[in-house]
Amino acid sequence: MYTIDLNCDLGESFGTYHLGMDDQVIPFISSANVACGFHASDPLVMDTTVALCTQHNVRIGAHPGYPDLVGFGRRNLAVSPKELKAMVLYQIGALDAFCKARHTTLQHVKPHGAMYNMAGKDLALATAICEAIYDVNPNLILMALSGSKMAEAAEKTGLKAAREVFADRAYEEDGSLVARTKPGAMITDEDEAIARVIGMIKDRKVTAITGKEIPISADSVCVHGDGPKALAFVQKIREAFGRESIEVKPLCEIL
Amino acid sequence: MYTIDLNCDLGESFGTYHLGMDDQVIPFISSANVACGFHASDPLVMDTTVALCTQHNVRIGAHPGYPDLVGFGRRNLAVSPKELKAMVLYQIGALDAFCKARHTTLQHVKPHGAMYNMAGKDLALATAICEAIYDVNPNLILMALSGSKMAEAAEKTGLKAAREVFADRAYEEDGSLVARTKPGAMITDEDEAIARVIGMIKDRKVTAITGKEIPISADSVCVHGDGPKALAFVQKIREAFGRESIEVKPLCEIL
Amino acid sequence: MYTIDLNCDLGESFGTYHLGMDDQVIPFISSANVACGFHASDPLVMDTTVALCTQHNVRIGAHPGYPDLVGFGRRNLAVSPKELKAMVLYQIGALDAFCKARHTTLQHVKPHGAMYNMAGKDLALATAICEAIYDVNPNLILMALSGSKMAEAAEKTGLKAAREVFADRAYEEDGSLVARTKPGAMITDEDEAIARVIGMIKDRKVTAITGKEIPISADSVCVHGDGPKALAFVQKIREAFGRESIEVKPLCEIL
Amino acid sequence: MYTIDLNCDLGESFGTYHLGMDDQVIPFISSANVACGFHASDPLVMDTTVALCTQHNVRIGAHPGYPDLVGFGRRNLAVSPKELKAMVLYQIGALDAFCKARHTTLQHVKPHGAMYNMAGKDLALATAICEAIYDVNPNLILMALSGSKMAEAAEKTGLKAAREVFADRAYEEDGSLVARTKPGAMITDEDEAIARVIGMIKDRKVTAITGKEIPISADSVCVHGDGPKALAFVQKIREAFGRESIEVKPLCEIL
Repeated sequence: MYTIDLNCDLGESFGTYHLGMDDQVIPFISSANVACGFHASDPLVMDTTVALCTQHNVRIGAHPGYPDLVGFGRRNLAVSPKELKAMVLYQIGALDAFCKARHTTLQHVKPHGAMYNMAGKDLALATAICEAIYDVNPNLILMALSGSKMAEAAEKTGLKAAREVFADRAYEEDGSLVARTKPGAMITDEDEAIARVIGMIKDRKVTAITGKEIPISADSVCVHGDGPKALAFVQKIREAFGRESIEVKPLCEIL
Repeated sequence: MYTIDLNCDLGESFGTYHLGMDDQVIPFISSANVACGFHASDPLVMDTTVALCTQHNVRIGAHPGYPDLVGFGRRNLAVSPKELKAMVLYQIGALDAFCKARHTTLQHVKPHGAMYNMAGKDLALATAICEAIYDVNPNLILMALSGSKMAEAAEKTGLKAAREVFADRAYEEDGSLVARTKPGAMITDEDEAIARVIGMIKDRKVTAITGKEIPISADSVCVHGDGPKALAFVQKIREAFGRESIEVKPLCEIL
Repeated sequence: MYTIDLNCDLGESFGTYHLGMDDQVIPFISSANVACGFHASDPLVMDTTVALCTQHNVRIGAHPGYPDLVGFGRRNLAVSPKELKAMVLYQIGALDAFCKARHTTLQHVKPHGAMYNMAGKDLALATAICEAIYDVNPNLILMALSGSKMAEAAEKTGLKAAREVFADRAYEEDGSLVARTKPGAMITDEDEAIARVIGMIKDRKVTAITGKEIPISADSVCVHGDGPKALAFVQKIREAFGRESIEVKPLCEIL
Repeated sequence: MYTIDLNCDLGESFGTYHLGMDDQVIPFISSANVACGFHASDPLVMDTTVALCTQHNVRIGAHPGYPDLVGFGRRNLAVSPKELKAMVLYQIGALDAFCKARHTTLQHVKPHGAMYNMAGKDLALATAICEAIYDVNPNLILMALSGSKMAEAAEKTGLKAAREVFADRAYEEDGSLVARTKPGAMITDEDEAIARVIGMIKDRKVTAITGKEIPISADSVCVHGDGPKALAFVQKIREAFGRESIEVKPLCEIL
């Protein structure tokens, strides 16, 4: 029997602006990355999202981002490790209050967008994030790209790290993601994407963009709930997992 | 022997903008109201301020405000109780993370500016604030104007409330503050201000603007650290307390 | 032959957040109220919206709001007339730059949401808005509720004011809008709404919520493009205008 | 007779936060770079600053920055040329409205902080800025580092560019500024700084950090008003200019 976590970004609406099909994707996932008000979300949305997660027994993670609402946290911002540590502390704490108010706890932290990408390649930034998490609660799990600087920093800091894989992205031979700007970066065929994920889970291998088979470890698969197509894919991957005897469980039951 | 808490707003700098003489006022106070990034402050300033408080053994309170940086949280904003509860939860949680990282805990919550004033007169808003505090931690103390709707809501919610008095403000006969727009609202003579505060502490009385003596209860006196004059006044009031055998202690040791 | 302007709020998207069916409603309207980045929109959205208006020959108005993105500018904020004047100047200027870059000009200014409502009842605020408009360009038209303090301030300031009416709102006997919180405030029957608007245009009369017929003057009718239902209504009202020989023209050709 | 412009960043206060000695530095300068609300300033501060400039007959430039108030626009942000053009258009327009209201006009545009630095080295970003300026008003002057990509883009776009030099910064042999992180980057000796500037103006030469003399062209010298020391330096440089028969004139009278 294999187990895997399915994680999805939730709670990305803001004020009157609605984003994502949270209500519909939540029955299919085991862990939610909940936006914390810097790149998306606001206090009311955070409260609603935490409530939704508790209703569906989905475990909650903080999804801190850069303070860039108009850019949705996707634009690189040259922050110092000190600034980064403080902004991650702030966001984890803010979300934690909503968890307390709903009698639940945080399971993990997954940096968002440009923060995820920059810290994945920069050990000083990655360490700042890990220290922030550790300082709030050393039992929180960092969700990080398999093989990234974040995974390295987590180990150094004494933090548990969950290795995240992507169904819809191609990999380089060194296990990093192929940059979105390169041809072939996205796996657009759904069946192929699902077959790849199943291979990552069962055989701990994936075929890199060069054609070479590389080793990979997967604790969690990232899925999306931002449109009908994404939603259909989540349902499809769950069905495939059912057929393949892969059980979906939250990170805290896997690690 | 009498005891009183001295509270002061701290950590109101923002980015490159410096505000307040935090380093200099902190030796004289027992409780700090630390801004949480909505009306003032930012994650780095919050971290520095919490560190400063722990160094001086000053107890920390969250100082949530309206999301109005340019107006410094002093402009009335028509928020619903639901929005208010969420924004208070968010800000308490954010500050709490910095406390955890510095191995300390929150003592109290004091709403800032327009939020303090509006909730002082509106039971629904006051209740929303109290519920937010209670939901995060029922042992947190609400700092509220003596006799206000916030004090009433705290009792209803089951929250301890500290009664705050002001040295530099005149009082109406009903115990409310005289509006700043009215003549005589501010007590500008320092010796008079100090004598009034001592009277509030020792005799539990103050002379209202009408000349009538009214009863008043004081757990904490609000002082300021936003300029050399304010700072000198804090030193002066501490000296007077020394002469009058009034001991300054944090709220948590008084209530 | 009768003429009327049809105005609609456009350009309310923000960053990755999409709002409104701008592309679909624009063929049916003559004037657009374009958000300026305080309550909604961002520089890129403003540019796209101005481009869309020029393509469809729809005249452009600035739609300044309170600096309250999370509240969409719908929450009352206690600003001083001086602050208000400055924030209106700022927003008109910002939009004007996009008009210049697209070789077009501003036609009008219509305050948004809480700013519209507060200034409609407060002459000092209304005057601040009118002065801001006048100072940028005395030929700009203020769009204001028929009979409001804004209309009064425009006259005082020497500004042309367009009288705006609402198809979906009930009126008090004094010509003010029935508060949304009161029963009967909204006209939900589409045919009734259209009949009422036609009556306002042709007979200069409308039936108040009390049943009494009151005089009313209409230069522009406010319509919405924020959903399929709103869009269908705009098409329906245009068809009715066609049957009734009411020609739709931008404000600048009516006043 | 030599002429030079002296430019200084003004209007960097924000809400209750005060920054800079604008009132005291303004008698000594000829051109002001006025912050536009993205990295600093707010609508009221912009109005006050434009009024101050008109009183002192100092010419006004827009000083657009990245939308990063907490970082004061000094942190690199990965914006696209399209985003950059829109945010520059927005800010120029906003400031222009205050100029119109005070019956004055914009003279120039000088990007701020990280925007200045990034566009100085990236032709696509530099071109986006120049197009924004040109689209609002082709007669506006771009203030750019002598020899930078911004100067190149201005020429390409058909925009007049003023070449800016720095009294307190060392130069590389290619005319670029020595990075602040390198030793010797800052010229800390005031007399040396003044002598260097005079050499740049009269001899069109400066000694690079390597010791080699390089050619340099100066239309404007950047000075600061953010503290008593900076202010004293401005006075000192003005006195030196007096002795050396270097006349201080705004850019528009030089180019």
